[in-house]
Amino acid sequence: MKIHNFSAGPSILPTEVMHQASEAVKELNNSGLSLIEISHRSKAFIEIIEEACDLALKLTNLKGKGYKALFLQGGASQQFIMSAYNLLENKAGFVNTGTWSTKAIKEAKLLGEVIEIASSKETNFNYIPDSYQIPLDLNYLHLTTNNTIFGTQLKEIPNTKVPLIADMSSDIFSRKFDYSKFDLFYAGAQKNMGPAGTTLVIIKEDILGKVSRKIPSILDYSSHVKSGSMFNTPPVFAVYGSLLTMRWIEEQGGVESIGQKNIIKSEYLYNEIDRNPLFTGFAVKKDRSEMNATFNLVNKSHSESFDAICESAGISGLKGHRSVGGYRASIYNALPKESVDILVDCMQNLEQKI
Amino acid sequence: MKIHNFSAGPSILPTEVMHQASEAVKELNNSGLSLIEISHRSKAFIEIIEEACDLALKLTNLKGKGYKALFLQGGASQQFIMSAYNLLENKAGFVNTGTWSTKAIKEAKLLGEVIEIASSKETNFNYIPDSYQIPLDLNYLHLTTNNTIFGTQLKEIPNTKVPLIADMSSDIFSRKFDYSKFDLFYAGAQKNMGPAGTTLVIIKEDILGKVSRKIPSILDYSSHVKSGSMFNTPPVFAVYGSLLTMRWIEEQGGVESIGQKNIIKSEYLYNEIDRNPLFTGFAVKKDRSEMNATFNLVNKSHSESFDAICESAGISGLKGHRSVGGYRASIYNALPKESVDILVDCMQNLEQKI
Repeated sequence: MKIHNFSAGPSILPTEVMHQASEAVKELNNSGLSLIEISHRSKAFIEIIEEACDLALKLTNLKGKGYKALFLQGGASQQFIMSAYNLLENKAGFVNTGTWSTKAIKEAKLLGEVIEIASSKETNFNYIPDSYQIPLDLNYLHLTTNNTIFGTQLKEIPNTKVPLIADMSSDIFSRKFDYSKFDLFYAGAQKNMGPAGTTLVIIKEDILGKVSRKIPSILDYSSHVKSGSMFNTPPVFAVYGSLLTMRWIEEQGGVESIGQKNIIKSEYLYNEIDRNPLFTGFAVKKDRSEMNATFNLVNKSHSESFDAICESAGISGLKGHRSVGGYRASIYNALPKESVDILVDCMQNLEQKI
Repeated sequence: MKIHNFSAGPSILPTEVMHQASEAVKELNNSGLSLIEISHRSKAFIEIIEEACDLALKLTNLKGKGYKALFLQGGASQQFIMSAYNLLENKAGFVNTGTWSTKAIKEAKLLGEVIEIASSKETNFNYIPDSYQIPLDLNYLHLTTNNTIFGTQLKEIPNTKVPLIADMSSDIFSRKFDYSKFDLFYAGAQKNMGPAGTTLVIIKEDILGKVSRKIPSILDYSSHVKSGSMFNTPPVFAVYGSLLTMRWIEEQGGVESIGQKNIIKSEYLYNEIDRNPLFTGFAVKKDRSEMNATFNLVNKSHSESFDAICESAGISGLKGHRSVGGYRASIYNALPKESVDILVDCMQNLEQKI
C-alpha cells in the first residue's frame, strides 16, 4: 500500500531525492566509492558543498547581495544560542509565537537582555501577533516564520530598521518570500530541505564581528564563513540530500512555483476543514500555515472512526502535537497533491459514515 | 577497478554497512517509508537510537557502570567547548599531542584556566609524552588517544585520581582498551563508527551538575542524557549508519577481536616501512598508531613514481596531511588486510623499479 506521509519532520522528501541519495550511498557518480567514505576535502565533496551553498543563495534570491550560506550541525536548537553568541551585544527582541520561539528566548537570555515584543501564548499560540512596537535599540528582532506545532505562519514581514533574524525551519523554500529583509535566517533541514542532520544558515556578512565577547570557534559564524562551511567535517550525507532537494526545487520552477502548488494544496485542505461540520481548524484563519494544517474533531468521540479510515487509506504521521491535540497535516513541498486529496476523501468518508 | 580507500576520514566503512544504509534510504525494513522521511519520534527510529546507545556501551564494556551514550552533532570540535562548559570549573590539564589537542586547548581556555601538562610540539608531535606530573587540583585531564594527522597513539592510560576525558575520534572501537578509566570520551563518527554527522559521547553520569555556570541547553550533557539522546532531532542517517557499523563490529567478535586484526594490519605495514630502504616512518616506534601510519620517502624525488604505482593499483587517499607531508595510510577497522597487502606491494614495486 502506498503510504501518504504527513509527518511533521523528519518528513517526506521527493521520491527521486530518496532514490538518488540511496544510490550515492552505494556509489557516488561511478567513482567506485560511496558518498559516505570519501574525504570531505576531496574534489567530489567540495563540488557538492559549493553547489549546495550556491543553490541555497540562488533559491532565496540572495546571490551577490552580501550573504553567505552555511550548512552547519545541531539543528535550530543550536542556532538559538549561536545567533545570540554572535549578535546579541545588549538587547534582543522576540516575537513569541510558539514552542520554538519560547526555547529561542530561553537560550538568548543566557547572553543578554531579552524582551518579548509580542506573544500569542495566552491563546495557546493560535495566531501571529501583528500590532507591536519595535524598539530601535534592539540588536535584532527574532521571528519564527512558521510554527510547526501550532500551524501558524508569518505572512507579513515587519517593517523596521532593526535587523531581523528568523527561524525558518518549517517553511524555508516553500513560498515567494523576500528573504533580503532578513540579516540572518536558519532552518533545520528535516522539513523542506533534506535529511535531518544539517542546518542551513544564511547570513549577511556585514553583521558579523560586532559583539565584544569571545565566541567559541564552533559557534562563531565567522569560522564557518571563512572556511566555506568546512570549519570541520560537515554532515556529508545530509548536505548531499539537501543539495538533491534544492536541485529538485529548482527543477520544479523554484520557490515561487513551489509556493503556488503549496497554496493549492493548503487551500484544498482548509476548505474541507471549514466545510466539513465534523472538523474545526485550530489556528486563526488569517495566520494559517501552508505547511502544517492543525485541526480537531468537533466531537472527539469520532476519533477512533477517523483514525481507522485514515489508517486504511495509508495515511501516516497525522497525529497532532501534544500541545494542541487533534490532527496536524504537514503538507511540505514534497507531499504530492494526491496525498492531500486522499486526506480530504477520508474526512468526507467520516462525514458520510456518521 | 577496485579502489583501496586509505582516506583519513570520512573513510572506508564495511561494504555491508554501505549497502544496508543505501537500502534503508530507499526503504526501511519494508515499512513503505525511507529511513530519512520517518519521524524521529516514531517507534522505528526510537528502536534505532536505543539500540545504538546500548551497543556503544556494550562494545566499550560500560553497560551497567553508570555511563550514558549519546549521539550528538557538531563533531569533536563541538566537544572541545562542550566538555569545558560542563566540567571546567577552575582548572583543566591537557596533554598536547597534535592539531586536535591544540584546538581543544584553545576552546577550553575560553572558560577557565588551562595548563599544558606535557606537549610533543617541539618535535612536530611525533611522539606521545609519557613522563609528566598530574596536579591533583585539576577538574580533568584531557587526552587525545589517537592523533590522525601525526600517526601517534596513546598506549598507556595515565594512572591518576584526576578524572580523565579523551578525544577518541580516530581510534574508538579499534582495540582492547579500558574505557572505564575515562569519565568522558567522545568520537566523531567518520573514522571507525559511521558516516560523518554524528559524534558519540560516552559520559559517566555522576560527573554532571558540578559546575556553577549556566550551560546553553544544546551544550548541556544533562539535556541530552535526560532526553535519551533526543533533545532535538538527531542526525537520523548518521546514527543509523553508526548502528550498522557497531553491529558489524559485534559480528566480527567485538573490539578485542577487531583489535587483533588491526595489530596484524599495522605491523605488516610498519614492517615494510622499516625494511624498505626507500621509506622512513614519521612517528617514533613506541607510539605508532594502529590506525594512521605516517611515512615519508627518504628521497622525495621518488614521489612521482610511487604516486603513479599507487594510482595504478587503485590506492586512494594516501596523501599525508600538510603538517607532516609524505604519506598517511589510514587503516581503520573496515579497511581489509588485502588493501594493506596492495600498499606494501606498491612499496616493494618502487624498490624494484629504482
